[in-house]
Amino acid sequence: MLSALLAQARGLCGDAQVQAGDGIEARYLQPARYGAGQAAGMVRPATVTEVSALMTLAAEHGARVIAQGAHTGLVRAGTPTDASRDLLLSTERLKQVFELDLLDRTVRLSAGFRLSELNERLAEHGLWFPVDLSADPSIGGMLAHNTGGTRMLRYGDVRANTLGLEVVLAEPAGQVLRCGQGLQKDNSALALGHLFIGSSGSLGVITEATLKLSPLPRQRAVALVAPSGLGPVFPLYQTVMQRWGVLVSAFEGISRAALEAGLHGQDPSRWFSGTLPDYALLIELSSELPAEQLDLNGLLQGWLESEFESGRVADAVLDADEAIWGLRHRISEGLRAQGKVIGLDLSLPRRAFMVFREEGSAWLALHHPQMRLADFGHLGDGGMHFNMVWPTEAGPLAPAQELALREGLYRLVAAHGGSISAEHGVGPQLQQAYAAHWRQVSPATLEWAKRVQVLFDPHGRLGSTHWGG
Amino acid sequence: MLSALLAQARGLCGDAQVQAGDGIEARYLQPARYGAGQAAGMVRPATVTEVSALMTLAAEHGARVIAQGAHTGLVRAGTPTDASRDLLLSTERLKQVFELDLLDRTVRLSAGFRLSELNERLAEHGLWFPVDLSADPSIGGMLAHNTGGTRMLRYGDVRANTLGLEVVLAEPAGQVLRCGQGLQKDNSALALGHLFIGSSGSLGVITEATLKLSPLPRQRAVALVAPSGLGPVFPLYQTVMQRWGVLVSAFEGISRAALEAGLHGQDPSRWFSGTLPDYALLIELSSELPAEQLDLNGLLQGWLESEFESGRVADAVLDADEAIWGLRHRISEGLRAQGKVIGLDLSLPRRAFMVFREEGSAWLALHHPQMRLADFGHLGDGGMHFNMVWPTEAGPLAPAQELALREGLYRLVAAHGGSISAEHGVGPQLQQAYAAHWRQVSPATLEWAKRVQVLFDPHGRLGSTHWGG
Repeated sequence: MLSALLAQARGLCGDAQVQAGDGIEARYLQPARYGAGQAAGMVRPATVTEVSALMTLAAEHGARVIAQGAHTGLVRAGTPTDASRDLLLSTERLKQVFELDLLDRTVRLSAGFRLSELNERLAEHGLWFPVDLSADPSIGGMLAHNTGGTRMLRYGDVRANTLGLEVVLAEPAGQVLRCGQGLQKDNSALALGHLFIGSSGSLGVITEATLKLSPLPRQRAVALVAPSGLGPVFPLYQTVMQRWGVLVSAFEGISRAALEAGLHGQDPSRWFSGTLPDYALLIELSSELPAEQLDLNGLLQGWLESEFESGRVADAVLDADEAIWGLRHRISEGLRAQGKVIGLDLSLPRRAFMVFREEGSAWLALHHPQMRLADFGHLGDGGMHFNMVWPTEAGPLAPAQELALREGLYRLVAAHGGSISAEHGVGPQLQQAYAAHWRQVSPATLEWAKRVQVLFDPHGRLGSTHWGG
Repeated sequence: MLSALLAQARGLCGDAQVQAGDGIEARYLQPARYGAGQAAGMVRPATVTEVSALMTLAAEHGARVIAQGAHTGLVRAGTPTDASRDLLLSTERLKQVFELDLLDRTVRLSAGFRLSELNERLAEHGLWFPVDLSADPSIGGMLAHNTGGTRMLRYGDVRANTLGLEVVLAEPAGQVLRCGQGLQKDNSALALGHLFIGSSGSLGVITEATLKLSPLPRQRAVALVAPSGLGPVFPLYQTVMQRWGVLVSAFEGISRAALEAGLHGQDPSRWFSGTLPDYALLIELSSELPAEQLDLNGLLQGWLESEFESGRVADAVLDADEAIWGLRHRISEGLRAQGKVIGLDLSLPRRAFMVFREEGSAWLALHHPQMRLADFGHLGDGGMHFNMVWPTEAGPLAPAQELALREGLYRLVAAHGGSISAEHGVGPQLQQAYAAHWRQVSPATLEWAKRVQVLFDPHGRLGSTHWGG
């Protein structure tokens, strides 16, 4: 199985950087969610030249290249599946380039760096790459999936913070394409680079990027808020945005079940004076100005008091941001402790957000009564993690039931003009749902996506997402 | 000359909406800069259905479609040139759709609306589309050229504020492609829509867009600043960004010659206590917070006083923003009064900005001593309008001299890693320079741009920009 290719890869990258079939370490094959994959071999190139040479070898030997960053993705795009022809290309050693430009506030860096490594290096300069996630992906993986996160409301997604890309192509095999020159303002060419962002590694292997950096905020004020019901949620959102606009760096929604998972046995009275609310909001303000010049905590507190009097807010906790964010980030872990998690990464127009939530939970109660809904999400940008738990005590979940569940809910998403992948990407995990969705919403999208994929990868040598359906 | 096509177009859109050859009104043929064009006919469809039908007719009759919005572009992309086969498709009547979603803060609208019309309708809701220009283009034209403007530093370009597109394609002729569903967060498909943004109307006719809107700031503070020399310019920029980050909504640079053009005979003592500085800065802060909560004028004034004491600022005027912006926006008009303007729309890495300026003006003085440099630009995002005036008294400028001038300066731009089109687009006006630039910087970019253009428009039926060079 590709043994000749692997021998050449050893010559190219060194023996220690190549693993064959059964010898591949488990972490390369086991994704963050869902079952393990398999591959004919794994190779860890250190430079773009090596990536290019490997792509040429793959073409000669008829291998399929699956690029993988930190393997934190949730749609299996980085997990190989074919033991006879998949060459897993790990980008974790791509770390040759790290050029920080403090005047432009940009960094040009190799795709193998992790988000945490980047932000550690930036902190001493008062800067950060503001795409904020629970996971710690590689830069290449973040680009391949156009990750969003909790601060997207203020800073935008990965796409909005990318100024340039270097990509190794499948055809001509190993060709290196540079998109953009890392400038803030540039309209001197077609926007080819954007095609690769969010393409799940299907159009090229991203080896380097130039990213836009932001000044680290000098203060944050965070509140966990219990609105008096679901009705006031979006009016509160609108008020906050009209008052504070760009100072609002997060506006998250958390259902009671998700709150309970985040509490993880902790006493709720730490958080609310009464019982847990049906739905809570996490509201964060942040600013480059220090608190002496602009008192964000005071602004937030004063507003919450007035909303308490007006009756739209029932309870609220202003706290050290770490404690509240800790609660928020423990939700996923708490849910996994309860059983099998089925996570739908949706986004919806805000007008349809609560309607979908209501219809979705009613549908769930009717058709899958044992499934527990514990949704939460980035309400400020329309993102909703419609996560469900199949309780351990209910026994294994039949694949057909999971499929029926997903299909039913995705149909509802399409009916409300929503997206079936807000920020996780597509990949093989969503392949079937993706094709069904776009066949319903816009068949021309499938048709054109296929043409573009065939243009960049006519022989199917890259990734396992089929954009044509 | 396409008379059968024009007859069918009359049947489709009505007699009043079609003009043939010599009967085409001058404004459709005369661009904002450079000489007039010509066309076989002009048609003004009112709906996407009519645009689609016209594209089919054009294919049948072998016509080339040149889409035109408000005809304010500076690269002639909307100006037809071929009297025998060009069909000018004006989008100015495309105004059927205008759906404002106050909860999502988005608008879905037809491409024919002008920026000013959009912002007038938004003002009553406390919102605006924050791409701020001197011209008043159509929404379709802004998308086709991905305009930037003076507030890009804070709000991003048109691309960053676009959530969805509707495009009519050349092949299959008249096919309507919808890219995105207008959601803030969506990674459920390849990012095909981005290809059309900044493509100068060469890949499809944009008929509709969904745009992201921003809250109107409640206050602005603007200062015109004379730094003590060129040395402190970027240190001042860095200080401002580190202090105020996202509150900084403009940071413009204006050379003395451009200042003089903007003054247009006005007494300079209105602005500065002494003589005009060699280089001035326009710095604007803005915020959604009212002045009672955050005193932007006070912040700016206090900082300027400290910089005056530190010696980095020699003089400064804090004024009503209209007066300062008026001066800034009169520059182009003032230059036109002096002679023929050659405008280069550049952007450069900040580290190379002043070096390029110095080398460029030295090269100019050596090779084209009669040419007067009067540069200004969006220093905050690296944009530089390297504008030059060929004085009226010097007689006509020979085309060969203009070409040599552009070539010499564009070579210098490439050597410094800059862009030859920051925000105006490419179009036929920059065709030659574009091809030369990318042949030098990255031949693969030309190769891939050509493949993509051939994919969308295999028979050359759309626009007059050749992305393959």
